[in-house]
Amino acid sequence: MDDAVLSRRSLIVTGAVGLAVPAVGAAVALTGSAARAGATRRVTIYAEALPGGLFGYGLEPGKATVPGPILEMYEGDTLEITLVNTTNQRLSIHPHGVDYSTESDGSPFNDSFNDPGETRTYVWRSREMFAAAGRRFMPGSAGYWHYHDHAMGTDHGTGGVAKGLYGALIVRRRGDILPDKQFTVVFHDMSINNRTAPNTPMFEANLGQRVEWLAIGHGNLFHTFHLHAHRWVDNRTGMLESISDPSPTIDNKDLNPGSSFGFQVLAGEGVGPGAWMYHCHVQNHSDGGMAGIFLVRNADGSMPPGAEDAIHRFQGHMHTTSTGDDHGGHGA
Amino acid sequence: MDDAVLSRRSLIVTGAVGLAVPAVGAAVALTGSAARAGATRRVTIYAEALPGGLFGYGLEPGKATVPGPILEMYEGDTLEITLVNTTNQRLSIHPHGVDYSTESDGSPFNDSFNDPGETRTYVWRSREMFAAAGRRFMPGSAGYWHYHDHAMGTDHGTGGVAKGLYGALIVRRRGDILPDKQFTVVFHDMSINNRTAPNTPMFEANLGQRVEWLAIGHGNLFHTFHLHAHRWVDNRTGMLESISDPSPTIDNKDLNPGSSFGFQVLAGEGVGPGAWMYHCHVQNHSDGGMAGIFLVRNADGSMPPGAEDAIHRFQGHMHTTSTGDDHGGHGA
Amino acid sequence: MDDAVLSRRSLIVTGAVGLAVPAVGAAVALTGSAARAGATRRVTIYAEALPGGLFGYGLEPGKATVPGPILEMYEGDTLEITLVNTTNQRLSIHPHGVDYSTESDGSPFNDSFNDPGETRTYVWRSREMFAAAGRRFMPGSAGYWHYHDHAMGTDHGTGGVAKGLYGALIVRRRGDILPDKQFTVVFHDMSINNRTAPNTPMFEANLGQRVEWLAIGHGNLFHTFHLHAHRWVDNRTGMLESISDPSPTIDNKDLNPGSSFGFQVLAGEGVGPGAWMYHCHVQNHSDGGMAGIFLVRNADGSMPPGAEDAIHRFQGHMHTTSTGDDHGGHGA
Repeated sequence: MDDAVLSRRSLIVTGAVGLAVPAVGAAVALTGSAARAGATRRVTIYAEALPGGLFGYGLEPGKATVPGPILEMYEGDTLEITLVNTTNQRLSIHPHGVDYSTESDGSPFNDSFNDPGETRTYVWRSREMFAAAGRRFMPGSAGYWHYHDHAMGTDHGTGGVAKGLYGALIVRRRGDILPDKQFTVVFHDMSINNRTAPNTPMFEANLGQRVEWLAIGHGNLFHTFHLHAHRWVDNRTGMLESISDPSPTIDNKDLNPGSSFGFQVLAGEGVGPGAWMYHCHVQNHSDGGMAGIFLVRNADGSMPPGAEDAIHRFQGHMHTTSTGDDHGGHGA
Repeated sequence: MDDAVLSRRSLIVTGAVGLAVPAVGAAVALTGSAARAGATRRVTIYAEALPGGLFGYGLEPGKATVPGPILEMYEGDTLEITLVNTTNQRLSIHPHGVDYSTESDGSPFNDSFNDPGETRTYVWRSREMFAAAGRRFMPGSAGYWHYHDHAMGTDHGTGGVAKGLYGALIVRRRGDILPDKQFTVVFHDMSINNRTAPNTPMFEANLGQRVEWLAIGHGNLFHTFHLHAHRWVDNRTGMLESISDPSPTIDNKDLNPGSSFGFQVLAGEGVGPGAWMYHCHVQNHSDGGMAGIFLVRNADGSMPPGAEDAIHRFQGHMHTTSTGDDHGGHGA
Repeated sequence: MDDAVLSRRSLIVTGAVGLAVPAVGAAVALTGSAARAGATRRVTIYAEALPGGLFGYGLEPGKATVPGPILEMYEGDTLEITLVNTTNQRLSIHPHGVDYSTESDGSPFNDSFNDPGETRTYVWRSREMFAAAGRRFMPGSAGYWHYHDHAMGTDHGTGGVAKGLYGALIVRRRGDILPDKQFTVVFHDMSINNRTAPNTPMFEANLGQRVEWLAIGHGNLFHTFHLHAHRWVDNRTGMLESISDPSPTIDNKDLNPGSSFGFQVLAGEGVGPGAWMYHCHVQNHSDGGMAGIFLVRNADGSMPPGAEDAIHRFQGHMHTTSTGDDHGGHGA
């Protein structure tokens, strides 16, 4: 990949995304100090086959993960993605939220995909809001979006999505608050990031760190994402945008196929450190393995009382279902 | 029907809604220049049996469509609907969002329905917001609503809804931006407007035209509406209502039974003309036929490069499921 | 329970919640005139077995209901709940929206639950918004939340939720408008408050009364809540928070497991008194019994014309499914 995109910030982000394999979950940060309005960045993404029948996107050969890397840009930036298809399957990369011509649609419908072994470039552009009429504006591109395959298996990429070809895409507005850590959570059929408990990702942060959650829905089933002891505003940023912001505060939100949202919390703020659950709130989904741990350590990084016991209970007693797979950037 | 409601604007709208049968999809426009606060309009709607076991609402005898005509009013207006039941079934018309007394509820529960062959009048009123306390207001009627049968088959109109008795209802606030074109999309069980690909509606606009999408959910299943290469704000109008509007921008939204939303986009803005997909993002729903084409032509109305090929692929290769029906105002 | 929490207001509320058994559905009002910022209140809640295999929470021994009592607080208040488990099952109480340490999580994961016969105290804290950066704020606790068991049957409380261990929790912001009446509606699998029509709750108000609806989703299925002839704003309060509030007005909203929302309407405002339906808008859910009556009486409390007939039709003719149970605070 283009080394220029690996800013210091993206390396910091790396540590947050994949604890077990920090080099893998690198975010393509266009939001570092070097970023400017209208910047064009180039990145190479490798679509690869993974053990267990999965597929993943990665920023370096042999480093694909499920989910793929977090891609970020500011409104106005352009991202040129050279997608290297190292597999023997037809596949593509299709983004939500940004601008692209039909050539970069990522769909067989528009003849926009990679044949097996093929390399193809996709261009994603973004923009700021622009005046409509009166006080109104047509929206810019800012949002917590995502990208996914749109060509493997069916013309809607059902096979690629099912096997792990998905990831988070963030378009920030200038002035947005940047997080200390980022977690990608994909509710996909009966799994989280194609894993089930107790093999679901354990996300870690220290007390008070600003954590950004990126939630994405995929597949055929409907879900609700719930996080214990933390909450967020159901608007663009997850924070009240002013003292008079009318948006509701929630801690449980529908997370259905093709949808995504994001928000930032201060880890353990007001509740203290500890092992907190995140899970699908559909009862037979959480019972079936759609649950994971958000471990909030003490501010100095040490383990808080009771957390080890809780993790032990989670791993040993609470769940019997397991996918058995062990790759990817979000291991417990 | 009352000729007075067929303003010049509604005729313009007609062309947008039903390309194959332009005279049928007429919107009942209360939003033309003649409209004023508190206007009362009368319209006759004919509920009719259609080929293939379907039923539809129409503004003239023999002209019923699935979905029914787009009905529009401004906050403060009243719509008096004389519903002529030309069928041998019990049926009604039940609106969302507006005011009605129990006599106009459209439910057997309130003894409000048309027996077979019966004509009955329903009155829908609307209003502006009014003060609650402090800076707060109780809401007015403005919204992207819908109407549907509430009496055929079961006391909840399950039979009528299943067979096509539904349509869009818009209540505008004064100052709202009017669109150039309008499309009604009803996600209903495994269909779009009771059709499946490749027989789903192909909506057409020229580059830069302001297109209003009216999305309605019905039936027993849950869906997510996704539109390629375009996005909207998840608020009342689909646009940022001010530079500080905190609402999120989205391109995928839950569209579930009884819910509706609307938004306006500039066709192809920032992405160019072409054949763009809209579809349910639930994978086995899109694979099963819940997909259609939004054809953005060049600004002069000519076909952009690649669009014919994409349409051909859609019609010939991508889908094998078809309802076989060919009536209605939204044909490909 | 602590007598101090039974303010005059909570007694008024009582009459609104449970018409048949007014002493049971008492709201724990922290919002009366005696409440102040930072107040700590103590309440004892009894978890009890009920006829028909149900379980409920109650504020006095032998008075448990399905749903449990409405709990209220202002941002800044703390609620200390002593939960007396009178049953032979493991159970807990887990809140949404408020702050709690791992000891009060209510989950077996954090070793936070009541063994059979055990008494245990849970502490819920709330807070006001606080500055993040620029004009932004991290959210306070205000919201229409809920509480439920998280320990019976499975580690996610699937057994307890299925059998009725749930209720509404409101955290108000100072300056919020207080209602005249409150109704709790829990969509739980194919039931409303674990009942099906015609045994679903009939909620009553007089014309013009300010009624607060508390809607909660639970279980394994997905639903949409619809109320006839009334509508609300899809934001924190259900009202437009200012003349420029961009939030949409709706009358149908997804109500899925773990989610909750609330809103206030003026009973019959603009539409008149009468028997109005509320129901799940998923067709086979409403047909299967997920429907009930919102009876808006005349302003003097007398019955409006036609209402008795509608109720009779609802009870006698429209539904054949019934749970047969007759306890609880929300009977018809």
